[in-house]
Amino acid sequence: MAVNSPKPVAADLKPVAGIEIGYAEAGIKKPNRKDVLVMTLAPGATVAGVFTLNRFCAAPVQIAKANLAAASATSGAPIKALMINTGNANAGTGELGLALARQSCAALAGLLGCDAAQILPFSTGVILEPLPVEKVVAGLPAAVAKLKADNWFNAAEAIMTTDTQPKAGSRSVTIAGHAVTLTGISKGAGMIRPNMATMLGFLAFDAKVAQPVLDVLVKQVADQSFNCITIDGDTSTNDSFMLVATGAGTLEVNSVDSPEYAALAAAVTELSLFLAQAIIRDGEGATKFITVIVEEGKSVDECRKIAYSIGHSPLVKTAFFASDPNLGRILAAIGYAGVDDLDVDQLNMYLDDVWVAKNGGRNPDYREEDGQRVMQQSEITVRVKLARGAAAATVYTCDLSHDYVSINADYRS
Amino acid sequence: MAVNSPKPVAADLKPVAGIEIGYAEAGIKKPNRKDVLVMTLAPGATVAGVFTLNRFCAAPVQIAKANLAAASATSGAPIKALMINTGNANAGTGELGLALARQSCAALAGLLGCDAAQILPFSTGVILEPLPVEKVVAGLPAAVAKLKADNWFNAAEAIMTTDTQPKAGSRSVTIAGHAVTLTGISKGAGMIRPNMATMLGFLAFDAKVAQPVLDVLVKQVADQSFNCITIDGDTSTNDSFMLVATGAGTLEVNSVDSPEYAALAAAVTELSLFLAQAIIRDGEGATKFITVIVEEGKSVDECRKIAYSIGHSPLVKTAFFASDPNLGRILAAIGYAGVDDLDVDQLNMYLDDVWVAKNGGRNPDYREEDGQRVMQQSEITVRVKLARGAAAATVYTCDLSHDYVSINADYRS
Repeated sequence: MAVNSPKPVAADLKPVAGIEIGYAEAGIKKPNRKDVLVMTLAPGATVAGVFTLNRFCAAPVQIAKANLAAASATSGAPIKALMINTGNANAGTGELGLALARQSCAALAGLLGCDAAQILPFSTGVILEPLPVEKVVAGLPAAVAKLKADNWFNAAEAIMTTDTQPKAGSRSVTIAGHAVTLTGISKGAGMIRPNMATMLGFLAFDAKVAQPVLDVLVKQVADQSFNCITIDGDTSTNDSFMLVATGAGTLEVNSVDSPEYAALAAAVTELSLFLAQAIIRDGEGATKFITVIVEEGKSVDECRKIAYSIGHSPLVKTAFFASDPNLGRILAAIGYAGVDDLDVDQLNMYLDDVWVAKNGGRNPDYREEDGQRVMQQSEITVRVKLARGAAAATVYTCDLSHDYVSINADYRS
Repeated sequence: MAVNSPKPVAADLKPVAGIEIGYAEAGIKKPNRKDVLVMTLAPGATVAGVFTLNRFCAAPVQIAKANLAAASATSGAPIKALMINTGNANAGTGELGLALARQSCAALAGLLGCDAAQILPFSTGVILEPLPVEKVVAGLPAAVAKLKADNWFNAAEAIMTTDTQPKAGSRSVTIAGHAVTLTGISKGAGMIRPNMATMLGFLAFDAKVAQPVLDVLVKQVADQSFNCITIDGDTSTNDSFMLVATGAGTLEVNSVDSPEYAALAAAVTELSLFLAQAIIRDGEGATKFITVIVEEGKSVDECRKIAYSIGHSPLVKTAFFASDPNLGRILAAIGYAGVDDLDVDQLNMYLDDVWVAKNGGRNPDYREEDGQRVMQQSEITVRVKLARGAAAATVYTCDLSHDYVSINADYRS
């Protein structure tokens, strides 16, 4: 039921020199399903990430943040591997959850011959249930045995939960004469309202990037991609987006002020936005892909507030599902977004090319059949012009359908 | 499909001395349906209200606010009547909307022999469509002809939109030896997340209350009733809650510090909460009535933030619909509520009498079957203890069902 969702083709996903990938069917929640993923990094790789702001931040997220901070310090031992399990979020699990996450890190470290602090753990699945650590640990040897460079499609499959299809993409760019290969995967279809982070997203490339530069890059990219999507406004406990620069290629980026940085940032942002949009296209029950653009604001923050208010409104989302141009609901969502000094009499609103609201009221030239025509489409852009400044923001979202309710009512069964 | 919703009985709704009510079937949106309501006030009545904070505040709300402010001033001519139409919200309609609302006020003023500024207009229905003012005006003479004291049940029916049943209640109390009669009506079933106001709510009583005292009372009552409910988080453009003190009885209240004020406030709050909860019980597609109590907070504000975060989460609401104790979703909603210094390791969460989360993790004594048992009920209380202070807040909400999607996908058809 995904909306114009790009199905990745295994042969199109390019290996990134310096990364090897293995997976296992560990039976964590369901049998015969890839649910454990290991990605090993060559020496010299740098890693940076952004994580959920949810206060019920999952145990693996807490450990990944701490291990990443230690590895990023000048004297820290580098990150050796990322380990991801699906079927259990290991969130809302208290001290026990931390102990079990550390236990699985130690098990992988033993297999790879490194320290447990060199492992970054990630989990996704049901919250408030204990991690079946013995299944994770039992699956790790098989995953390590499968390690190879050309395994990105399997990696994309191994991190799926309610996703209906894997999400992955590759790009090849040339920067300052150096060939750079980028490949990334993402997952997520519900509990999606990333905040300074995303659902699970992993993107690797083979340039060499100094740690402080990568730390800047990951935040900049997240703000332009995974932080611009919402399905249901629910920020997960486990959201993480990781960038890996393996350093196995010939490009080196040591400064954020260099033209190489700008070119690399553009390529990473483009692929990240593709992966983020793939999450929305495969949103639970989604039948429409909606782009909400808010322009002419005083600040990016107020534009984002309004764009998210539209993107989260159940009434707006059900109208899209019904292809019903009940567009007053969009005005209502703008009005309660919390921009207290908004002068609605200056506001204009468009649905694709159709000018719906003019100076805060119905455009006299607006015809219902024009709105109806656009609402029938599977891809729709809402554009709001606030007429009070030069700032803008874009949010990507989907509609709210019967299937969203069905999927989430039946999630654990 | 309402949840244990109290069906008002016409004979139980007591007239309030000083108020007369008339209605008409004006065919504004659908034929053969009461859609125009007029309530006239005896001389000496005082009126106070709270209104939506939505920036796309509807034309009638703008006029009602201005007329009420003028009437509340010492030299102002008193409010003579309230006029309500359903079928059209007259919101997102710009200057034309204001002109049409004023036109209908003038028509009623002509029939009642008063000034247009003495009328308070209210509208509810579809946004962004022009008010069919000629139908409203044509319906007013019939409504005026029907004016009588014993018409509250018809009034409750006349303000319904997607409501499946009218919402009304009466109370008789004795305060300082004076008999006081209170009767109120409300409407609303979707686009419900009142903010300093409510959907349409009108409550009258026959005590005499000085204007400044009534102004305090209406805000105090709204904060304890209509501002504690949410169905879908969508704050309407037309929300209004009005208190009318007709002064036709023998009780006089001239100070907020008097015991009479306290007793009257308690009675008005109790009836208002009943009317507010009736909106949730009749929430679009609702199958469960959920009370969310957040306690031991540092401030009421942070408790409300967390309670609303739980009450708005589509994932929490679908879990309630499915009677699935997927209670980690509640923790996730607490975690992203925006209370940045929340120490989740101190937090406890209960579902009715079942202790689910203890010190931020799963209570070792929690058994799935206990959660399952509570989730089957039609009325459920979620209680969260933050262990960081003495403040508390309560929010009432309902689940998110297939019928919510159906009702809102088909609203205009």
